[in-house]
Amino acid sequence: MSNAACYALSDWGTSRFRLWLVDCNGHVLAEKRSDDGLDTSRARGFTETLEGHLSALGAPADLPVIICGMAGSRQGWVEANYVPVPADLKAILSGAVRIEGIARDVRIIPGLSQSGSSPNVMRGEETQLLGAILDRTLSNGIIAMPGTHSKWVTLEEGRAKSFSTYLTGELYALLASQSILRHSVGDAATSASPDHPQFEAAVELMLSGKRMLGELFGIRAAMLLDNLSPEGAASRLSGLLIGAEIAGAKAKSGSRVTLVASGAMAALYGKALHIADLDFDLVDADEAVRKGLFVAASSIWPAKG
Amino acid sequence: MSNAACYALSDWGTSRFRLWLVDCNGHVLAEKRSDDGLDTSRARGFTETLEGHLSALGAPADLPVIICGMAGSRQGWVEANYVPVPADLKAILSGAVRIEGIARDVRIIPGLSQSGSSPNVMRGEETQLLGAILDRTLSNGIIAMPGTHSKWVTLEEGRAKSFSTYLTGELYALLASQSILRHSVGDAATSASPDHPQFEAAVELMLSGKRMLGELFGIRAAMLLDNLSPEGAASRLSGLLIGAEIAGAKAKSGSRVTLVASGAMAALYGKALHIADLDFDLVDADEAVRKGLFVAASSIWPAKG
Repeated sequence: MSNAACYALSDWGTSRFRLWLVDCNGHVLAEKRSDDGLDTSRARGFTETLEGHLSALGAPADLPVIICGMAGSRQGWVEANYVPVPADLKAILSGAVRIEGIARDVRIIPGLSQSGSSPNVMRGEETQLLGAILDRTLSNGIIAMPGTHSKWVTLEEGRAKSFSTYLTGELYALLASQSILRHSVGDAATSASPDHPQFEAAVELMLSGKRMLGELFGIRAAMLLDNLSPEGAASRLSGLLIGAEIAGAKAKSGSRVTLVASGAMAALYGKALHIADLDFDLVDADEAVRKGLFVAASSIWPAKG
Repeated sequence: MSNAACYALSDWGTSRFRLWLVDCNGHVLAEKRSDDGLDTSRARGFTETLEGHLSALGAPADLPVIICGMAGSRQGWVEANYVPVPADLKAILSGAVRIEGIARDVRIIPGLSQSGSSPNVMRGEETQLLGAILDRTLSNGIIAMPGTHSKWVTLEEGRAKSFSTYLTGELYALLASQSILRHSVGDAATSASPDHPQFEAAVELMLSGKRMLGELFGIRAAMLLDNLSPEGAASRLSGLLIGAEIAGAKAKSGSRVTLVASGAMAALYGKALHIADLDFDLVDADEAVRKGLFVAASSIWPAKG
C-alpha cells in the first residue's frame, strides 16, 4: 500500500492554490496548481473548490487534508489563530484548526505572531520554516524566506524566537511596474541577474549603509544620462532592494543563514548573501513547504502511517 | 503702468499646469491652474494649450512667457538640456531655450544633471531652488525640496554643487494605495499628522539607523494585532518614509537646511527636521517657484522692467 495516497497537502494563498497527494512516506503521487486564490474560492465556496481539485486528482473521500497559507486568515475559509513567538514547533502543529460541518477531515495550520514594539505576523511561511528546520535538523540560527514579504526568523534552541518582515518582493513589483522606474525597467522586470555588475554594485552600496530611498531615482537618471539598459535597471533595482533587506537582517545577527528559496530568487539572494559575507545553506522552498505540511499531517494523523 | 502685465510665468509639469501673469515687480495680477499636463497638452498641441490659458487671463499677444518643469523634457514641448553640476545659477538662467516657429517669445528653463557615480537629474526644482536662494540670499547650505521626488541640494559659494533625490512622495502614494498597506491606511492617506505619536516614533526609528524596508509590514501587523487606526497607519507610513529621507540626507551634511515646502508637507517635514535636531528656515514652495520664474524672466527680458 506504499503507493496509496495517505494525505493531501495544500498551500492555499491569496492568489494561488497548490495541492499534492502524498504517500505515507511523503512521496508526491499527484500534484495540482491553480489560480484559485482566496477571492475566487470564497465566491465559489471553499469546500467546493477544494473538493473539485481533490476529485480531479482522484483522491478518495476519506483522505485527510492539511492546509497552510492565507486560507487560514480572517478573510479565508476558517481563521486559524496565530501562535505567539517565542513558539515551540509543536505548538504550531497542535494549533491546527479542523473545518467543521463537512465530512472530510480538513485542518488548517496556524500562523505566527509577534507582539510588543515590533508587531509582526506570518501565515504560510511557518510551514516552510517547519520543513526547513526538520530537513536540516536545525536548533539555532537564522532562517531567511525571501518572497513578496520576506521573513527572517531567529531560531533559538529549537524555538522560533522572533522574526522580521521585509516588503522586498512587493516593493520590487510596484516600483518596476507602477513608478517612474517603469520607464527604465520596461518589460525586463523578470530579467534581474545576480551576475550583472549593477546587481553587485547595488548590493554593496546598501551594505555600505546607504539608504535605498535615496538611490532608487538614480536608476531613472542613469537611463537618461548613461543609457542604462532595461536589464541593468532591473538588476540594479533588485540589488538595491535585496541589498537593503540583507543589510537590515545582517545588523540583527551574524549567525549562519538557512536560505529557503527556489529558482531565480535562490540565485539572487545567494549572490547577495555571498557579497554580504554571510555563510548560508540552501533549502528548496517548494520542498520545504511540502515537508512542513507532511510533518504536520503525520503528527495529526499518525495512525495513517 | 505698474499694474500692466510684464511677464507670464508657467510651471508646466507631468500632470498639472500653472500660469501667472505678473507685473514688472513680480506681483501676481492673475492666475490659472489646470490639469493640462504633458499628455493632454501634447495631444491638443502645446502652443494651443498655452495660448488658450493666456487668452483666458486676457494676456496681450506680445507678453513673453517663461516656463519651468517637464514641458522642457524629451517628452515635453521642446527639450531644454540639463546644465551639469556644479552649476552657477547664471548658467541656469542663460540656458533657457526659446520655442521656435511661433510669434510669441516663449522660453523654457533647463534642468540640472549630475553625472558620475551618483547620476541624477532635476527639472522644475531648479527654479524653486533659484527662487529660494534669491529670496534668502543664500550662498552655502542645504536646500530641501520635498515632493513626489524630493530633492536635496548642497549649495557652496553660490553654486549648486551636488544633489540627491528621494522617491518619498511617489513611494508613499504607491504603498498607501496599491500595496498590502492599503488595507491599513484605507481612505486616510491624506490624514498623516506630524502630531500623531506614530509619526514621531517612526521618524525616530529611522534616525536610529533602522531600514525602512523592514518596518513597513509592521503597519499591517499593528492593525491586525493592536487595532492601529487608519490615521495612525498613515502617520506611521509617512514617518517611516520622511524619516528615512532625512536620515539619509543628514548623513551627508549637518548644515543648516532651507526647507522649500507648503501646507501639510511643510508641517510634516518641519516636525521631522525638528526631531532630527536639524535647524531649518521655511520658504513657501509656491512662492519659490514664482520667484525663480520671475527672476529668470527679468534676466532674459530686462528692458521690460
